[in-house]
Amino acid sequence: MPCDNRSMSPDRTPTTFAPLQNDSFLRACLRQATDHTPVWLMRQAGRYLPEYCATRARAGSFMGLATNVDYATEVTLQPLARYPLDAAILFSDILTVPDAMGLGLSFAQGEGPRFATPVRDEAAVAKLAVPDMDKLRYVTDAVTSIRKALNGRVPLIGFSGSPWTLACYMVEGKGSDDYRLVKSMLYSRPDLMHRMLHVNADAVATYLNAQIDAGAQAVMIFDSWGGVLADGAFQAFSLAYTARVLTKLKRTGVDGQIVPRIVFTKGGGLWLKDMNTLECEVLGLDWTMNLGTARSLVGGEVGGPGKALQGNIDPNVLFAPPAAIRAEVIRVLESFGKPHTDTATAGPTQIFNLGHGISQYTPPEHVADLVAAVHEHSRQQRA
Amino acid sequence: MPCDNRSMSPDRTPTTFAPLQNDSFLRACLRQATDHTPVWLMRQAGRYLPEYCATRARAGSFMGLATNVDYATEVTLQPLARYPLDAAILFSDILTVPDAMGLGLSFAQGEGPRFATPVRDEAAVAKLAVPDMDKLRYVTDAVTSIRKALNGRVPLIGFSGSPWTLACYMVEGKGSDDYRLVKSMLYSRPDLMHRMLHVNADAVATYLNAQIDAGAQAVMIFDSWGGVLADGAFQAFSLAYTARVLTKLKRTGVDGQIVPRIVFTKGGGLWLKDMNTLECEVLGLDWTMNLGTARSLVGGEVGGPGKALQGNIDPNVLFAPPAAIRAEVIRVLESFGKPHTDTATAGPTQIFNLGHGISQYTPPEHVADLVAAVHEHSRQQRA
Repeated sequence: MPCDNRSMSPDRTPTTFAPLQNDSFLRACLRQATDHTPVWLMRQAGRYLPEYCATRARAGSFMGLATNVDYATEVTLQPLARYPLDAAILFSDILTVPDAMGLGLSFAQGEGPRFATPVRDEAAVAKLAVPDMDKLRYVTDAVTSIRKALNGRVPLIGFSGSPWTLACYMVEGKGSDDYRLVKSMLYSRPDLMHRMLHVNADAVATYLNAQIDAGAQAVMIFDSWGGVLADGAFQAFSLAYTARVLTKLKRTGVDGQIVPRIVFTKGGGLWLKDMNTLECEVLGLDWTMNLGTARSLVGGEVGGPGKALQGNIDPNVLFAPPAAIRAEVIRVLESFGKPHTDTATAGPTQIFNLGHGISQYTPPEHVADLVAAVHEHSRQQRA
Repeated sequence: MPCDNRSMSPDRTPTTFAPLQNDSFLRACLRQATDHTPVWLMRQAGRYLPEYCATRARAGSFMGLATNVDYATEVTLQPLARYPLDAAILFSDILTVPDAMGLGLSFAQGEGPRFATPVRDEAAVAKLAVPDMDKLRYVTDAVTSIRKALNGRVPLIGFSGSPWTLACYMVEGKGSDDYRLVKSMLYSRPDLMHRMLHVNADAVATYLNAQIDAGAQAVMIFDSWGGVLADGAFQAFSLAYTARVLTKLKRTGVDGQIVPRIVFTKGGGLWLKDMNTLECEVLGLDWTMNLGTARSLVGGEVGGPGKALQGNIDPNVLFAPPAAIRAEVIRVLESFGKPHTDTATAGPTQIFNLGHGISQYTPPEHVADLVAAVHEHSRQQRA
């Protein structure tokens, strides 16, 4: 694999970014030894931060925030100004792709996302196509802007919803507590569901490749609703299409570095062995899965193949007092066990994260306690 | 163990019930061979049945229905008039116990349950006590009434929420999508949470024993929200208190027969080995867990110890056309595999059920297709 492929792909911007100062996250993704366990938090740029709420108020709406490059850059960097996090993640929404397909995404005040024209019949499925990436230019522009603004401090993660998770919203039209409509289609018209997932997979791959070309240094696929599927249906309707996305992803970024691929299926612990077959570097886990068990199943040995693991503290731990947060952080780090420390070869590694997005009600000072505890105890583990 | 212990317990009503005609459910609970796989459905008496809606309209409200012995009897028997189900389950709610503790349960139109006085601080926890069973007399009277009305046709299952599931509602005051309040208490004040769970466990045991004394032939503990807990927290805050309930339960009913105990933790597949330590006969599973894997983990061998398994089709399958319902039923039965057929000894058995309560939008005629497919294919499996 070339060290620098800037000239290999004609559609790539020859932007030169500042050299990376903290590579602990990328190293851990590749199962390389680090001196501490890197930590970042799903939804780390979010409503629990007063400065985020201030920017959002200026932007007028969630989509006003997400579609404005300057605002998206500003809020992505906000948590990094407060906490010594080891990675940044693009501020955006998992539903930008179906919005670009023409489904009409909106966020009503106090409610979740909603599509104006959900996809519920054969005619609607037939109309679906991979959207023109120009419609998602606001995302790729934000990626480049954020990467520049980061100035090499930490790596930038791009992301997308998984094909199945996008399909859930596309059929239901909004969040659901029973997934009745999307599962009715799955069980009644599996042919339609497969067609939709096929389009979604190609769209997600194109979208993530555009983010990689714009400067993303890792990419994550959020299979937020994979865990609602039955055993058997998960493999056929979620995992297979995540696999399809992964095989189409560019392996290196604009600076020639490997771009690690992270897959997170919420509630997917039971299928970890199935997920081990995915062509990705990192598997994300929620708090229901014991990390020691996960490590023994898919984490591999020193010198052998395996997946890095990302996760998995319950975000509700952040409502406890600092001493309890620290105790739970230690419990999670110890459940994974000591990561390997041999810099000469790959081995089991953990990236510390929540098992779900941070709650809007989280006290911001508690996040500082969590990050400090991860860094401190994980250094002690290696000593 | 005596065959008839009616005279052993002074608080037991010496009611004589009709002899049981269909014992397939009870046999399967005890891992005894049956000529077909017994089937019943969680929430089988419910809003998908027009006759249920008519009775509920006469009762005026959900609690009006649940607290009236005649109405509760009527709706419990309604699904049996339509389908050849192998068990009946008491029509009631999992929140009757905290209501009897004085929390003030209500069901607003179109919403879920709500408590007037949720339990959120030390003072509120200190006030909790096992309620006087006289306050739950409407439940035990309903059990006796239903048992009489069944006239031995199929066995009657009694039930309760698990201590943890009750605590979720008691702290949150209603349903939740993040369990922030109850988990905040768990992580901030584990001492309070343990105190509440201790009271809940004793209340649930007393309640289930009262149902057994009133005529229940099996009892089920619904740990509906155990699956939202982190690994470690599940074992300490849910499983330990379910175990406490189980050790206190009467082992035989008013007619001297063994009363099988079923535990169902929604989303608990990852903890199946932990659950195997419970003193119960049956473990319920949702659709995320492969039944063949579950059988190999906890189902036991012919002649050896083990648990019967109950589950686990996705209730959304019932929205598919009959041919697809049949195919999915066969898939679930085949994933468990052929149950043992040696009538002389115990061995692996399945009780067919949904992995969650039936949806109110289910077409009633599809339930007939599901029940017929279970009976037909499971007989073929044994042929």
